[in-house]
Amino acid sequence: MLQKRNAVLVDGVVLNGPIMDAKAGEKFVEEACKIIMEEVIQKADDVTEKVCEWRDPETLKQILDLEMRDTGESHQKLLQLCRDVIQYSVKTSHPRFFNQLYAGIDYYSLVARFITEALNPSVYTYEVSPVFLLVEESVIKKMIEFIGWEEGDGIFNPGGSVSNMYAMNLARYRFCPEIKEKGLSALPRLVLFTSEECHYSMKKAASFLGIGTENVYFIKTDERGKMIPEELEKQVQRARKEGSAPFLVCATAGTTVLGAFDPLDKIADICEKHGLWLHVDASWGGSALISRKHCRLLHGIHRADSVAWNPHKMLLAGIQCCALLVKDNSGLLKNCYSAKAAYLFQQDKFYDVSYDTGDKSIQCSRRPDAFKFWLMWKALGTTGLEERVNRALALARYLVEEIKKRDGFQLLLEPEYANVCFWYIPPSLRKMEDGPEFWQKLHQVAPIIKERMMKKGSMMLGYQPHRGKVNFFRQVVISPQVSREDMDFLLDEIELLAKDL
Amino acid sequence: MLQKRNAVLVDGVVLNGPIMDAKAGEKFVEEACKIIMEEVIQKADDVTEKVCEWRDPETLKQILDLEMRDTGESHQKLLQLCRDVIQYSVKTSHPRFFNQLYAGIDYYSLVARFITEALNPSVYTYEVSPVFLLVEESVIKKMIEFIGWEEGDGIFNPGGSVSNMYAMNLARYRFCPEIKEKGLSALPRLVLFTSEECHYSMKKAASFLGIGTENVYFIKTDERGKMIPEELEKQVQRARKEGSAPFLVCATAGTTVLGAFDPLDKIADICEKHGLWLHVDASWGGSALISRKHCRLLHGIHRADSVAWNPHKMLLAGIQCCALLVKDNSGLLKNCYSAKAAYLFQQDKFYDVSYDTGDKSIQCSRRPDAFKFWLMWKALGTTGLEERVNRALALARYLVEEIKKRDGFQLLLEPEYANVCFWYIPPSLRKMEDGPEFWQKLHQVAPIIKERMMKKGSMMLGYQPHRGKVNFFRQVVISPQVSREDMDFLLDEIELLAKDL
Repeated sequence: MLQKRNAVLVDGVVLNGPIMDAKAGEKFVEEACKIIMEEVIQKADDVTEKVCEWRDPETLKQILDLEMRDTGESHQKLLQLCRDVIQYSVKTSHPRFFNQLYAGIDYYSLVARFITEALNPSVYTYEVSPVFLLVEESVIKKMIEFIGWEEGDGIFNPGGSVSNMYAMNLARYRFCPEIKEKGLSALPRLVLFTSEECHYSMKKAASFLGIGTENVYFIKTDERGKMIPEELEKQVQRARKEGSAPFLVCATAGTTVLGAFDPLDKIADICEKHGLWLHVDASWGGSALISRKHCRLLHGIHRADSVAWNPHKMLLAGIQCCALLVKDNSGLLKNCYSAKAAYLFQQDKFYDVSYDTGDKSIQCSRRPDAFKFWLMWKALGTTGLEERVNRALALARYLVEEIKKRDGFQLLLEPEYANVCFWYIPPSLRKMEDGPEFWQKLHQVAPIIKERMMKKGSMMLGYQPHRGKVNFFRQVVISPQVSREDMDFLLDEIELLAKDL
Repeated sequence: MLQKRNAVLVDGVVLNGPIMDAKAGEKFVEEACKIIMEEVIQKADDVTEKVCEWRDPETLKQILDLEMRDTGESHQKLLQLCRDVIQYSVKTSHPRFFNQLYAGIDYYSLVARFITEALNPSVYTYEVSPVFLLVEESVIKKMIEFIGWEEGDGIFNPGGSVSNMYAMNLARYRFCPEIKEKGLSALPRLVLFTSEECHYSMKKAASFLGIGTENVYFIKTDERGKMIPEELEKQVQRARKEGSAPFLVCATAGTTVLGAFDPLDKIADICEKHGLWLHVDASWGGSALISRKHCRLLHGIHRADSVAWNPHKMLLAGIQCCALLVKDNSGLLKNCYSAKAAYLFQQDKFYDVSYDTGDKSIQCSRRPDAFKFWLMWKALGTTGLEERVNRALALARYLVEEIKKRDGFQLLLEPEYANVCFWYIPPSLRKMEDGPEFWQKLHQVAPIIKERMMKKGSMMLGYQPHRGKVNFFRQVVISPQVSREDMDFLLDEIELLAKDL
């Protein structure tokens, strides 16, 4: 493709013309897109496909040609590699993928993601990301409306864990702005409160931010996994007595394992009384705000100072799509995070630089994650999003009732949300007496069933031990591709896989 | 699409069959892909297209229909929205987009990104991301080879800023592991050192991690922007005398504005002498390691304890693709970051759980950013990547020589890398005497030219004031679509845009 005439050589490199063969590149993209369409997108709703084609790590290494070499591969070889990558990857959009807090496929969000990958933007200044910055502003405004604040601020982040970190640092900044410059070394011990059932990112955040995991005071929860407000009050008083500095309560709206919602209104009372920042980790449960039927789960959330909410979970916006929303609209977020890099955030630009919002972020390059949520919202409308939430929770309800009807299945608790936690007690254990031996044996059941379902590829479902309870399944219902037939299949399949246990 | 027979209703929701019309969704994806192909990908190498179709924020809000409503829009309307989004977005793959430290299009990386968007994985456990975890392991291993370590560890992150934070926290953990639990409150003041020319993420990191921006000691640089080792030595001694606790030196390999490389070998000597962690922020300059010709810029990097390297910059892997690489291979990274969430990192799984590497991360959901780099590397081979680096630097060299030949252009300094910093002195200023008035007037020139180029859409080039120097242009040469004709165009165009100034 080089223009040989008038070639300019510098350091032995010909500088005329581009070095890429654009036509061949475009053809490669077209061929690969065809594979993606046929092997991923068109199979997304097909239950006869496997959820995964399981290979253990050593075998998979043999199959995939992982090594990067001095010379490149042919397009033909590369397309085969793409096929292999798809074949051996887990199909998270499969109607029977229930393993995580995300699942399914949304065609609109997917298109938005293809657009942003092709445009390859970074969202920090209006000059390089005009559309995506306006879209982010507008999505944040809409999410704030659903929280019930009159105004606010916010930013999209690479994950709910990062959103929780943002909130923790922001609460600390409001508590003592000098920490930004001075650090924590001369200060009393900062203490924050969250429930025993909180996401593990609270510990990661406390450690990363220099607060220390021991200064996270875990508040007891009731039998449904909800923070007990009286226990919170006690712990705040304890911290005060110790001479430490309480600054933050992190409530959870939709806990990871049980799907529990902390009583936000009562917690907000305590925060108000003690002057503590209230952050609500609604990464998982936030999407219920879209549903007029289920938004009561988050009653009181308008009293929070900040909220983490991940539309990539129940709303299917694609990983990652995570907003931190902040009630303050006086510039707290920017003051807390800004570093005023002169090479990026020039103040003598020819447009209104208040649109250069990148300095609110701990990141420099940042992906336009709001856009995929926006396009999906435009496509489905609020009622379409609401329908998703209502249906997921109705399916969860259906599953709960079916579990109650079947021998050998035992609910851990009546769920509030889309996490349905249950044990499967295989035939050989059904007549055993309740006691340590029974639970010890039951503990081993879920891992065996999990191994069998993975190797068969029929579905994917998570299990875990949890706070003294032996291994149980956690079924998470999300995808609009899922129907009650899939719920029935799930229970039938567990029985089938475990019939000899 | 609902199966009306035997409908199961729960909470007013029909639960039979999926609620999405898969065929219509697939058709929408196909139509949108056609637009993406025609409007973005096929135009990427076309210099007759505009780099941007500039609209100010208020006008663009009018054009785009940003509002999210109760009811969804038709496919036809949505496809028009997609076209609008593309039209008014900056074309970062345009051969004349020189505004940031990324540019261009790589067809292989793009295909990889389409695949991951379609598969929608999260990289934390082998069971949900078997392929992508193996790929990440293999890419990290290869990058470590180029750094020159015999072994090591690493993780891909959402941005170089985040990688730098990881390194800072890791250095702190090695310095005093109890900080993870206890926090910083009872400790002496931790101090870290970096050059005056470092990336602004150092300040953001120090503030976020509770260290405080005042405890970042900025080391003087020489006239080329390189850290002066003797000054580092002095500052370490000063910190010791003050009774604070030095723990980390962050050297920069390829500074953001000037593209300067700190003298790593001499800095490593000082770190060794004082027992300090050496982190090298090679987010921008790391890609030179791929070139046998230019890797000497990073001479001594094998002595670093950690390295941040972003293949999304000069190597075009797509935003974001950022690795933190760590020399330690004894589990420091995991020990520092792990929170051992039982619901995700079960220890009784049926496969080797050492492949469940997600607990090394501060994130929970994490994108498979290594994959796009891997597919690109497979396609181009190391020699193809090397050619990119060599060509970018040769083009920068060509531009420098052209600048020297032309009236009115003045280099700020002889560049080491692909950042070519220069002033354009318009005709009216050429005969002015050197003095405050001259510089004050010159300071206003770049913003005016920038405004004109944006409104014309002919190219995008950044400018900034920097450490006492008035506004100058920073030309960054990256893309393999760029040729010396584009370099000539750049200079011609500046002259044209500024001829009346």
